[in-house]
Amino acid sequence: MTTPDQARVLVVAAITEREPGERRVALVPEVVERLVAQGFEVLVESGAGAGALHADDSYVTSGAKVGSLDEVVERADVVLVVRRPPPETLARLRPGQVLVGLLDARGDRADLDTAVARGVHVLSLDLLPRTLSRAQTMDALTSQASVAGYRAAIVAAEAFGRYFPMMITAAGTARPATVLVLGAGVAGLQAIGTARRLGAQVTGYDVRPAARGEVTSLGAAFLATTVTADGGDGYARALTPEESAAQRAELDAAIRRFDVVITTAQVPGGAPPVLVSAETVAAMAPGSVLVDLAAGPWGGNVAGSVPDERVVTPGGVTVIGAGNLPAQMATGASAAYARNVTALLAAVVADGAVTLDPDDDVVGAVWVRPEGAA
Amino acid sequence: MTTPDQARVLVVAAITEREPGERRVALVPEVVERLVAQGFEVLVESGAGAGALHADDSYVTSGAKVGSLDEVVERADVVLVVRRPPPETLARLRPGQVLVGLLDARGDRADLDTAVARGVHVLSLDLLPRTLSRAQTMDALTSQASVAGYRAAIVAAEAFGRYFPMMITAAGTARPATVLVLGAGVAGLQAIGTARRLGAQVTGYDVRPAARGEVTSLGAAFLATTVTADGGDGYARALTPEESAAQRAELDAAIRRFDVVITTAQVPGGAPPVLVSAETVAAMAPGSVLVDLAAGPWGGNVAGSVPDERVVTPGGVTVIGAGNLPAQMATGASAAYARNVTALLAAVVADGAVTLDPDDDVVGAVWVRPEGAA
Repeated sequence: MTTPDQARVLVVAAITEREPGERRVALVPEVVERLVAQGFEVLVESGAGAGALHADDSYVTSGAKVGSLDEVVERADVVLVVRRPPPETLARLRPGQVLVGLLDARGDRADLDTAVARGVHVLSLDLLPRTLSRAQTMDALTSQASVAGYRAAIVAAEAFGRYFPMMITAAGTARPATVLVLGAGVAGLQAIGTARRLGAQVTGYDVRPAARGEVTSLGAAFLATTVTADGGDGYARALTPEESAAQRAELDAAIRRFDVVITTAQVPGGAPPVLVSAETVAAMAPGSVLVDLAAGPWGGNVAGSVPDERVVTPGGVTVIGAGNLPAQMATGASAAYARNVTALLAAVVADGAVTLDPDDDVVGAVWVRPEGAA
Repeated sequence: MTTPDQARVLVVAAITEREPGERRVALVPEVVERLVAQGFEVLVESGAGAGALHADDSYVTSGAKVGSLDEVVERADVVLVVRRPPPETLARLRPGQVLVGLLDARGDRADLDTAVARGVHVLSLDLLPRTLSRAQTMDALTSQASVAGYRAAIVAAEAFGRYFPMMITAAGTARPATVLVLGAGVAGLQAIGTARRLGAQVTGYDVRPAARGEVTSLGAAFLATTVTADGGDGYARALTPEESAAQRAELDAAIRRFDVVITTAQVPGGAPPVLVSAETVAAMAPGSVLVDLAAGPWGGNVAGSVPDERVVTPGGVTVIGAGNLPAQMATGASAAYARNVTALLAAVVADGAVTLDPDDDVVGAVWVRPEGAA
């Protein structure tokens, strides 16, 4: 006979992010409250919420227990993180324990594979099949890209030395800022929408011809190049080297005409393409602002961008390396992330235990299995 | 006989601002071009435009001559500045020369009076009669307050850890940020408008009951206190000490409910009122943001605000001392200012000479005359 008190209770833990500059946290108090109501026991590493302005107290008030990394990992069935923990933290996880996060499973993953080989169950949200309707509530890449895109427009407006909106005054009219957004994925569309909200004159661009409709539906112009990659089916076809060079030259010339350029071409686990060359940066007008959402250890979309830094060139162009904007808006980004990660949790938990079904379309996709496993 | 070449040409000069952190400049290349076309000779101190990203070259291209402070002041009939120059610069001005700027003539003006006593003609744009329709093109206080208000909302959005707009996603809804703007002058109304553009839920407040209509016409709510200062004629009446205290308590309680509070109660030449007390700051939720547009050497509207600094309290409240936001958006602010200052110039120049008519409603107001003069 089991009484409710003796029923198996699943223990879920959020630990502190250890990546430099990372201020997000995988669980926020509001979501903890919901998990506790659903019967989970929730543990939070002391200080985990500090960067997102959630004090330990607020987690306790929401029903979590707060402890050291050792205490928390020791007792947890499931460990939730935002980004991949360092090897020394991965080494503390034990066989059968579940790790969930945006673990960059498409990047160099030797340390993840080591944990997997030891029997740790690793679920990486960046492997989520994004077109699957069921997976939308779990789509952390989308929720974080949305924050990045919104914030890219805010950061650009803050760095720009003039108004974004048109201003009509007795003494004359200030023309609106012209903003070009390269890449019309989630981040790009959110940047377009936010820059439009602020009154800028916005143009979007994407190599996918199908993006035109999404860009123009937000009220922005679509940058047309004479070379198109339209394969006739809405998808891009491969360009010949000559076509590629011509497209490149057209884009270079276009970029120079804008006050603000936001680039969003991230490549999962790989080096991002350079969309704005050093020559183009040098040719831009003083006061221009470039925000590079792909800036990271493997480069960025803008030549000379430095991750998490704001560089002003001798020509007066501001280049902002903005590869981790969600960390700068940590409270909102964490709230969205916590909802995503707990939606995945709900999909793999039944009767107080985690069940991983490799044939499930979500689990099968996000589960990082040992090399050679089915 | 005079040929056009021998006609008297008025020499106008813009000099470098010397106030720490001041990046504006009184003339921008576009306006220089217009002045030169009108027959002025324009001099610009070398480096004067650097903070607003206007290189010396761009002034030369627009028809100005660039030189040292000595060269420029030596030859100028009219010296244009944004803010009051330091005493050593004022000392270089000679009798009969005209100085125009936002000279803070209502503040401690001993050094201005010294220049005036030596026969320098001092015109201070902060004395402009703002209700005069003729003066609107010259209204530098308005153009700079507009920049400050716009930028206050941008800076607040940048400092805030969540979205300003409501975000509806598959995983849940993020509620819009709540923003309170205290003071519904030019800066306050611009802050309201910009925060609204960004999708925040905005409330305005002003002791002048007539401000309600201006606030609500922008789509914002007006914060009603049970004590009103409505004198029945659209103007505020004086409150009794008891009423004042009750209003204070109501306002204190209201402020604590907002995510973002922007304060705009500057007092020309005097100490600004404290609108947000230390107790209220301490009572605000972690993550709240306060932007104090009155922060300066004589205090500010928010207890603990530090000019040009961003302080995060132990309670997680960000207090931004933002007394000179126009300097942070120097290109746009300078463009507007240059148009204002040249509009005043046009009003006092005829036939290549400056004529100051004390009976003119604009000149009579802005002209700082010796003590005891008519």
